[in-house]
Amino acid sequence: MRGKKQNESRTLMSLLVVGTVAFDAIETPFGKTDRIIGGAATYASLAASYFTKKINLVSVVGDDFPPYAIRQLHDHGINTEGLQIKTGQKSFFWSGRYHADMNSRDTLDTQLNVLADFNPEIPDSYQDCEFLMLGNLMPRIQMQVMDRLEERPKLVVMDTMNFWMETAWDDLMKAIARVDVLTINDAEARQLANEYSLVKAAQKILKMGPRYLVIKKGEHGALLFHNEQVFFAPALPLEDVFDPTGAGDTFAGGFIGYLARTKDISFDNMKRGIIYGSAMASFCVEKFGTERMLNLKQEEVDDRVQEFIDLVQFDITLVD
Amino acid sequence: MRGKKQNESRTLMSLLVVGTVAFDAIETPFGKTDRIIGGAATYASLAASYFTKKINLVSVVGDDFPPYAIRQLHDHGINTEGLQIKTGQKSFFWSGRYHADMNSRDTLDTQLNVLADFNPEIPDSYQDCEFLMLGNLMPRIQMQVMDRLEERPKLVVMDTMNFWMETAWDDLMKAIARVDVLTINDAEARQLANEYSLVKAAQKILKMGPRYLVIKKGEHGALLFHNEQVFFAPALPLEDVFDPTGAGDTFAGGFIGYLARTKDISFDNMKRGIIYGSAMASFCVEKFGTERMLNLKQEEVDDRVQEFIDLVQFDITLVD
Repeated sequence: MRGKKQNESRTLMSLLVVGTVAFDAIETPFGKTDRIIGGAATYASLAASYFTKKINLVSVVGDDFPPYAIRQLHDHGINTEGLQIKTGQKSFFWSGRYHADMNSRDTLDTQLNVLADFNPEIPDSYQDCEFLMLGNLMPRIQMQVMDRLEERPKLVVMDTMNFWMETAWDDLMKAIARVDVLTINDAEARQLANEYSLVKAAQKILKMGPRYLVIKKGEHGALLFHNEQVFFAPALPLEDVFDPTGAGDTFAGGFIGYLARTKDISFDNMKRGIIYGSAMASFCVEKFGTERMLNLKQEEVDDRVQEFIDLVQFDITLVD
Repeated sequence: MRGKKQNESRTLMSLLVVGTVAFDAIETPFGKTDRIIGGAATYASLAASYFTKKINLVSVVGDDFPPYAIRQLHDHGINTEGLQIKTGQKSFFWSGRYHADMNSRDTLDTQLNVLADFNPEIPDSYQDCEFLMLGNLMPRIQMQVMDRLEERPKLVVMDTMNFWMETAWDDLMKAIARVDVLTINDAEARQLANEYSLVKAAQKILKMGPRYLVIKKGEHGALLFHNEQVFFAPALPLEDVFDPTGAGDTFAGGFIGYLARTKDISFDNMKRGIIYGSAMASFCVEKFGTERMLNLKQEEVDDRVQEFIDLVQFDITLVD
């Protein structure tokens, strides 16, 4: 990768997911939840678990976090040795209300709690990290994780949000420069590049360091940019979007999980990863919170991917 | 079609385009035009002219309409025998201003002029109509055109807008029930069906009569619904959208033009028509008014369609 000389003494083989494991309280036009399990790393690792079984989690919770929720992660083959449990402290909490269009939301409450002084620890057993998913967190913490890995992973995917553009620009620029794939939404891409056109914004962002850029457009799908190439995947048209929380993290988890299973980071395989990520996200929004992501069958995933194929594939042969 | 006994004495072979031929004045964040040539039938017939050469136009203008604009239509093989020129009257005029997102606009002025008492005349030479494009007009006039064709065309595509839902609901319902393909935008689909979910809206609208429904989502692409099938085509991500005026009519013209050339109205061929229509629309928005649509080369059209193929095609083989 990038000409860096690799230490060949260890075989890289696991997927490391870093991000929040948390409580959410959600209001949508369809209903309202009390505190339920959420967090970027929860959604991303659950989605990835349908593709690969060597998943290591790095995060932090308080002792208010229920053991059953950690067991649910174990049941999906997710190693939580790197999940710190802080006695006497509370888990990160976010509360939000979605508008009728389900594409915009208001944050009602954010309580950082354990996240305020999160110092990510990488267990020795995690040092075989081949694929790294940096879920949305302070850019400084995302960089600490990269610093604490002895070998650079084969692929680093990073998610971020507008909040860090406004409060930690310099750190964000440094973090972005070190990753392979950046995933952000359309409004964030416009803000990051100061360009309304997503094509122009993508060209600018690719010059900031990442070789690949994924722009997530919610119900309007996702774009993958790499050099002069562009790939687009729609969101599946659904009868009802019940709760969009975690859809972006589920998308990213499905994407990197598929790449980790196939161990192929070519542009063509990333296209497939985008489709698998989109399929996983389409499940996520069908129920509140993580509910739909806990008990998917392989057959359901395959059927959903087939729906994407049917949705967009056509047969045109141009004659020169 | 639909079990109706056809009169076999005439060979159906032409494309008939009905709609406005008009003046527009447009403001976008990129600039402002004086009165320029516009109108749904202008855009649709120009787009179709890149696919088929038997195009007949039915419309009405005043004697203020410049002869050069009619010559431009002739230069594209468009027959204007059915274009009425009303002495002493003025052409239809529309003026609008686009917002920064280019997906929404305000109408600044509408002057019906010759359109107020438009009585569409179908010349005898137009009676071989195989494909009929009913551009956005009063539903009563759209029905008059269908009534005045001696044989039902093989395929009738109809465009409409929210204004007729609010002012001519009963006529609109009667017109919609008689066509094969209805094309409307996403906001109009929601209004027509009184459903926020486009999937649910589509199911309701297909019960109103048309066997196919195209929902145009502007920069977010287009959906084709037929029975339980759905097809999606994105809009091409462009560096700049200069002027969206006429993009929907250009899309419809490219769609029906492609179907008229291939004489194949299967769902699979309609998918190709949607891609060709999307490609033509992506040219339309690159310049003000009809400018970009007047001098396209076949090679440019092919290259643009290839961009769509590259944009959305992926290769996933699911194993049962």
